[in-house]
Amino acid sequence: MKKLILVRHGESEWNKLNLFTGWTDVDLTEFGRQEAYEAGKLLKKEGYKPEMCYTSYLKRAVRTLNQVLEAMDMDYLPVEKSWRLNEKSYGAIQGLNKADTAKKYGDDQVLLWRRSFDVQPPALDLHDERSPRMDPRYKEIPDNEIPLTESLKDTIARLMPYYKGVILPSFKEYDTVLVVAHGNSLRGIVKELRGMTNEEIIKFNIPTAVPYIFEFNDHMELEKEFFLGDQEEIRKKMESVANQAKKK
Amino acid sequence: MKKLILVRHGESEWNKLNLFTGWTDVDLTEFGRQEAYEAGKLLKKEGYKPEMCYTSYLKRAVRTLNQVLEAMDMDYLPVEKSWRLNEKSYGAIQGLNKADTAKKYGDDQVLLWRRSFDVQPPALDLHDERSPRMDPRYKEIPDNEIPLTESLKDTIARLMPYYKGVILPSFKEYDTVLVVAHGNSLRGIVKELRGMTNEEIIKFNIPTAVPYIFEFNDHMELEKEFFLGDQEEIRKKMESVANQAKKK
Repeated sequence: MKKLILVRHGESEWNKLNLFTGWTDVDLTEFGRQEAYEAGKLLKKEGYKPEMCYTSYLKRAVRTLNQVLEAMDMDYLPVEKSWRLNEKSYGAIQGLNKADTAKKYGDDQVLLWRRSFDVQPPALDLHDERSPRMDPRYKEIPDNEIPLTESLKDTIARLMPYYKGVILPSFKEYDTVLVVAHGNSLRGIVKELRGMTNEEIIKFNIPTAVPYIFEFNDHMELEKEFFLGDQEEIRKKMESVANQAKKK
Repeated sequence: MKKLILVRHGESEWNKLNLFTGWTDVDLTEFGRQEAYEAGKLLKKEGYKPEMCYTSYLKRAVRTLNQVLEAMDMDYLPVEKSWRLNEKSYGAIQGLNKADTAKKYGDDQVLLWRRSFDVQPPALDLHDERSPRMDPRYKEIPDNEIPLTESLKDTIARLMPYYKGVILPSFKEYDTVLVVAHGNSLRGIVKELRGMTNEEIIKFNIPTAVPYIFEFNDHMELEKEFFLGDQEEIRKKMESVANQAKKK
């Protein structure tokens, strides 16, 4: 049996401050690190043995993965990082307070930027100090592919070449693969695997630092998917993520 | 200019307990983590910008690298792990107290195992629970290459294919490369780069968590090598490592 384990990074500093984060490289909170460590302990207890790990270029994901691997005592596992697993870019509203942004642009507009499938927030200028073009880690991305803003649709579009070209093919070599990433990049994978519509995936909230397990048969057909852990606690976590999305 | 940065992992639990460690996968102490973090802060302050990182399969090295990358704010860097960067195997004396071992086998014998170039400690049985053959992380190593004990000469011999075949060629793509490993695997690299004799390298003690910088011209000829940081503190650290080696 093949297994894909998805983990959304733990709580970040800007989750707490209620700012639009996107590609801004903010750290985990101490609680976020603990959540991540607990996820690793749970995976270990339940006997999961990943053989390959993928994560994004953003430290809240990398550090979540590091915590998971420490807790599993599997620091030796190979890890590949890719910008294609990064969070959705929020463009020019990155770093703005969600409440202030709602005041300035109106609730309906902000809701569209946050919860529509294909509406993009205002774009960053290529030479804005927040633009990925100004950050050497992204030098491999050609100018015409640099995300200066993204809808969820755009995020999924730049994720797919990596998901289909790198992550899925790695199951030829490995039985269990771990992906630690972000709410929206993971939505891309979940949508694809579960065949969800655009509307379904927008409403689907992935809780932070809860292992989301997908089991496949040897033909890589999905047989089962579930969140690992206490189901009542997970339900509360998902509600809290959904409520955070409504909070102004 | 090309730069190779070597970092020996921070203090480990077994350094503190004075046990033979080798391939035993022991954690850093809290002090060891701090040392590692400080090394990263120093590299950042001095403007080093590694583009590629290598480390071993042992958590004291991986966690040292994680601390360095956190401190440098460069968690996104690619990392490749290899068993060939592991510490020298101490074979059947792994896990034994250094003082007890000296009592049992005699000081001279233990000194030979620890400080000769080509004398191996007694070998592990392939099926000893401490044997790498019993550990799934090493499944890629064929039985006839599994280190059941090693002299420094053996350690260098299994390191070289990786150093010459992977690390050095990566300078075609990168200007600055970071290697976080162990006292004896790093000795192999230092011996090669500085053209040291067997006697010279045995006497050369690499301090823990001090960046050791090698600068090359564009033809990869060594131009300069130095330890980064306060030279008086580094001298003390090197002495303390040398004295630890004498301690029974």
